[in-house]
Amino acid sequence: MPTQPPTRELQTFPNPKPERDYEIRFECPEFTCLCPKTGQPDFATIRIRYTPDQRCVELKSLKLYLWSFRDEGAFHEAVTNEILDDLVAATQPRAMVVEGDFYVRGGIHTVVEARHSRQ
Amino acid sequence: MPTQPPTRELQTFPNPKPERDYEIRFECPEFTCLCPKTGQPDFATIRIRYTPDQRCVELKSLKLYLWSFRDEGAFHEAVTNEILDDLVAATQPRAMVVEGDFYVRGGIHTVVEARHSRQ
Amino acid sequence: MPTQPPTRELQTFPNPKPERDYEIRFECPEFTCLCPKTGQPDFATIRIRYTPDQRCVELKSLKLYLWSFRDEGAFHEAVTNEILDDLVAATQPRAMVVEGDFYVRGGIHTVVEARHSRQ
Amino acid sequence: MPTQPPTRELQTFPNPKPERDYEIRFECPEFTCLCPKTGQPDFATIRIRYTPDQRCVELKSLKLYLWSFRDEGAFHEAVTNEILDDLVAATQPRAMVVEGDFYVRGGIHTVVEARHSRQ
Amino acid sequence: MPTQPPTRELQTFPNPKPERDYEIRFECPEFTCLCPKTGQPDFATIRIRYTPDQRCVELKSLKLYLWSFRDEGAFHEAVTNEILDDLVAATQPRAMVVEGDFYVRGGIHTVVEARHSRQ
Amino acid sequence: MPTQPPTRELQTFPNPKPERDYEIRFECPEFTCLCPKTGQPDFATIRIRYTPDQRCVELKSLKLYLWSFRDEGAFHEAVTNEILDDLVAATQPRAMVVEGDFYVRGGIHTVVEARHSRQ
Amino acid sequence: MPTQPPTRELQTFPNPKPERDYEIRFECPEFTCLCPKTGQPDFATIRIRYTPDQRCVELKSLKLYLWSFRDEGAFHEAVTNEILDDLVAATQPRAMVVEGDFYVRGGIHTVVEARHSRQ
Amino acid sequence: MPTQPPTRELQTFPNPKPERDYEIRFECPEFTCLCPKTGQPDFATIRIRYTPDQRCVELKSLKLYLWSFRDEGAFHEAVTNEILDDLVAATQPRAMVVEGDFYVRGGIHTVVEARHSRQ
Amino acid sequence: MPTQPPTRELQTFPNPKPERDYEIRFECPEFTCLCPKTGQPDFATIRIRYTPDQRCVELKSLKLYLWSFRDEGAFHEAVTNEILDDLVAATQPRAMVVEGDFYVRGGIHTVVEARHSRQ
Amino acid sequence: MPTQPPTRELQTFPNPKPERDYEIRFECPEFTCLCPKTGQPDFATIRIRYTPDQRCVELKSLKLYLWSFRDEGAFHEAVTNEILDDLVAATQPRAMVVEGDFYVRGGIHTVVEARHSRQ
Repeated sequence: MPTQPPTRELQTFPNPKPERDYEIRFECPEFTCLCPKTGQPDFATIRIRYTPDQRCVELKSLKLYLWSFRDEGAFHEAVTNEILDDLVAATQPRAMVVEGDFYVRGGIHTVVEARHSRQ
Repeated sequence: MPTQPPTRELQTFPNPKPERDYEIRFECPEFTCLCPKTGQPDFATIRIRYTPDQRCVELKSLKLYLWSFRDEGAFHEAVTNEILDDLVAATQPRAMVVEGDFYVRGGIHTVVEARHSRQ
Repeated sequence: MPTQPPTRELQTFPNPKPERDYEIRFECPEFTCLCPKTGQPDFATIRIRYTPDQRCVELKSLKLYLWSFRDEGAFHEAVTNEILDDLVAATQPRAMVVEGDFYVRGGIHTVVEARHSRQ
Repeated sequence: MPTQPPTRELQTFPNPKPERDYEIRFECPEFTCLCPKTGQPDFATIRIRYTPDQRCVELKSLKLYLWSFRDEGAFHEAVTNEILDDLVAATQPRAMVVEGDFYVRGGIHTVVEARHSRQ
Repeated sequence: MPTQPPTRELQTFPNPKPERDYEIRFECPEFTCLCPKTGQPDFATIRIRYTPDQRCVELKSLKLYLWSFRDEGAFHEAVTNEILDDLVAATQPRAMVVEGDFYVRGGIHTVVEARHSRQ
Repeated sequence: MPTQPPTRELQTFPNPKPERDYEIRFECPEFTCLCPKTGQPDFATIRIRYTPDQRCVELKSLKLYLWSFRDEGAFHEAVTNEILDDLVAATQPRAMVVEGDFYVRGGIHTVVEARHSRQ
Repeated sequence: MPTQPPTRELQTFPNPKPERDYEIRFECPEFTCLCPKTGQPDFATIRIRYTPDQRCVELKSLKLYLWSFRDEGAFHEAVTNEILDDLVAATQPRAMVVEGDFYVRGGIHTVVEARHSRQ
Repeated sequence: MPTQPPTRELQTFPNPKPERDYEIRFECPEFTCLCPKTGQPDFATIRIRYTPDQRCVELKSLKLYLWSFRDEGAFHEAVTNEILDDLVAATQPRAMVVEGDFYVRGGIHTVVEARHSRQ
Repeated sequence: MPTQPPTRELQTFPNPKPERDYEIRFECPEFTCLCPKTGQPDFATIRIRYTPDQRCVELKSLKLYLWSFRDEGAFHEAVTNEILDDLVAATQPRAMVVEGDFYVRGGIHTVVEARHSRQ
Repeated sequence: MPTQPPTRELQTFPNPKPERDYEIRFECPEFTCLCPKTGQPDFATIRIRYTPDQRCVELKSLKLYLWSFRDEGAFHEAVTNEILDDLVAATQPRAMVVEGDFYVRGGIHTVVEARHSRQ
């Protein structure tokens, strides 16, 4: 049984319709990482919404990318922005929103939403 | 028993009321195609909304058209845009939206929404 | 037992309050006509919403009017626009919307919505 | 366009698993007949539930059978029992229930439910 | 891209706890086969519930098994019983229920439910 | 940051009221393990219901115990029974039910429910 | 304009299937009578459920019968039992239930339910 | 304006159908009394369900009876039982249930339910 | 037991953040007064929403204030406006809305909504 | 400002109707205590249901009693049973159920339900 999570590398493919503005939405309820302070697991649903430009993110690589956080320590705010940064770097979208919706910790339910718009 | 899916040809008929802007909406929960990477089946609900100009798409031919993807490999983003392109080519509508709402793959639920407006 | 559907004639009566803009809404779930291609029965809910001007449509005549489609062949788009045209001709309303919400055929659910506004 | 409803004949096929008791359920929201007193259309949802013995009712013939009532005058109680009788005669099931759920007439909503069990 | 559906072979593995009666439930909304009369696609949700004895059905092989019906003609009643028969043959369960919940055809929604109990 | 999941050891404490039959229910939506075939992550909600005898399971140790599966390969059926076995071994309850409710894999949603009753 | 409500006479017709026990249900939300103390209007929904023997109640006559209470003073308890008595007298059913569900009066919502079973 | 609440006297009338067992249900959301400790107002919904014998409770007198508690101090448990006792004394029913459903006090929501069956 | 309702006097306290516009909302389902015509009790839910200026209304005094209507005769429209007037006089808010939502009387459900904005 | 919670003493009063079996239900969403391991606050809804014998628990004293746990360390299982024990000791009821429904801790939602029946 393989036990190493994959490297954090997002595959893309050419946008099949770059001359059109259209929207792609992903909902990923199977996200988990570790609390950087205690090392204990955190869980979240990650929601992604974007308008591609020249590249689209490939679905399987997105799954592997999200999986790659499984053994990483990450603050809620940082990891949501990091996912946005990585997806922006990989696909250079016209616009993108990432929302991290985290399970209750210490009696508090946290949602972080970050947006990118191209200049 | 016939086993060959029909050719991908959209029938149209003259818009019975071209002098009026009105809206036609279809919801098609019985869409399936193949993953171009693995050859495994994908499933989706296709939603179409349009304002016809001179031609309307004929319902039975739309059913056959959607059926024609059954043995085709198709990325989510490409197939949604392709359906929009084919419907636009066939009917030259005043406006049209196609939404592909795909079943979970790799723990991720994907929706692609593409719009066309006439210049 | 009478078996002939009534003639397609809409009765109206004077708007009791023409100096005021107000809205009248009908929902008619008992609409059936025939598919012009196969002769098989189609079923729909017809929704009508209008702001009367000098004339209102009389309820019983509306029932008979909708009944008159029972043995007629009619495309979804055409019949929805035809109902709107007939109601507009009979009542000359300030505004009117007709929505035909048809049962699933070939795995596809169709809704046609047509609007009329007075110039 | 064909305008004659089909003859009232139920097709059956051999039960593919007669050695097993199992249940088949149909819901048919597209039923219409005529009021035997006034000739006006009636509408209903017909629900059928049965355990087949040696024969199953074929789906397309069931559709045509229900269609055949379109131009018939029929009391609610009679038509529900007639459908049960015809289905029992055609399939000789181990058990069967037919429910006719009729639209409001005269401000009254009527449901008729009839059961058959084999002696 | 592979285009051949897999062979219809159910893999099993030893029940990890045969000395205990426990229940396994699957819901599979991605089932499609062909109408044996017209060759047109049918769609269904398949629900399976069983108490294993010495063998459990392996999840990936169940997916491939259900996929294998994609190009097969199959009546609703027959295919539901066939799935039950194949699963019973492969796992010899203490008890099993299979429910096939099919999309509307000809205006009729069909559900078939078959049960197996060990003598 | 600690990165090693804890050892799989359930802490218990004396039942504060062993002379009384009462029920304790846990719902744990934050369970993840690995697929023993592919090494990919699986996710589930684990539900536990039991009547303690002399020992109760301690909540924090239950959290750590469930966490300990994070890097383990485990079939759905096996892991649900294993959790039941471990909890039974640790607490010797009068009765216990464990339900594993797993996320969709291969288009299939799986639930495993196992019960223990003391002889 | 006629102002006299119809006479209180229930029409029946022969049960089309007296050799079978089956059930007929009516829901009549348009019932109104007068408070015998104050003469003010009362409103109710009347629900009727019965298994006919040799006679069924005719729907239009039931509508007229219920209408006939419009100018009658009637206590909630009395009118519900009276409707049951009249329907029993007219149809001699195998079993019947009548429920009167009255609108709020004096801040109090009242429901009266009466049953008849044949000896 | 009259300001004196009415005396606590329940009017009854002869059961119009004593030879039949039937049920009468009241829901009275407009009940208020005073806390016997602090003199502050309490509010409740009173629900009554009974099978009358020779006498029925008259609706207006029930309203006045419930009103009569407006300026009375009353514990939740006592007032619910008192209402049951008074209704039983007045009507000698075959069976009766009274439920007092009180608004939150001190952060606690209280419901008292008392039943009477005739020996 | 004290039986006198308190005097109608609203206590206030200094707004802790007068330099900011913010909103305070109260929902008070335990309001009762008397009908000025019949002396019979009326019941309502009172909803209050305001933006304080220099003073906030004190919660316990609000409870006592609302209680003070218990033995007062008050028309629905008058009492809603009177509550708004008293609260405005006591707190001089930047904006305030009072809604009186009264129980059904004579088959009619009444809501009165009054607003105050500072010039 | 007083900072000491009240002593843990339940007041009772004589059951106003001991000759009758009836039920009293409390729902108390405002319960908080401390985790005995970490000293952090826990929150729960406490639900109580009982049939009194000679004594009823007084509502205000119940509020103070529940408040008294605010600064106490208490395991979920122990505190639920302790509340049941104290209420049983104070009122000697014919039957009683106490349910402690605790907020999520460590990703786990816990409910403890304990029952007492008189021998």
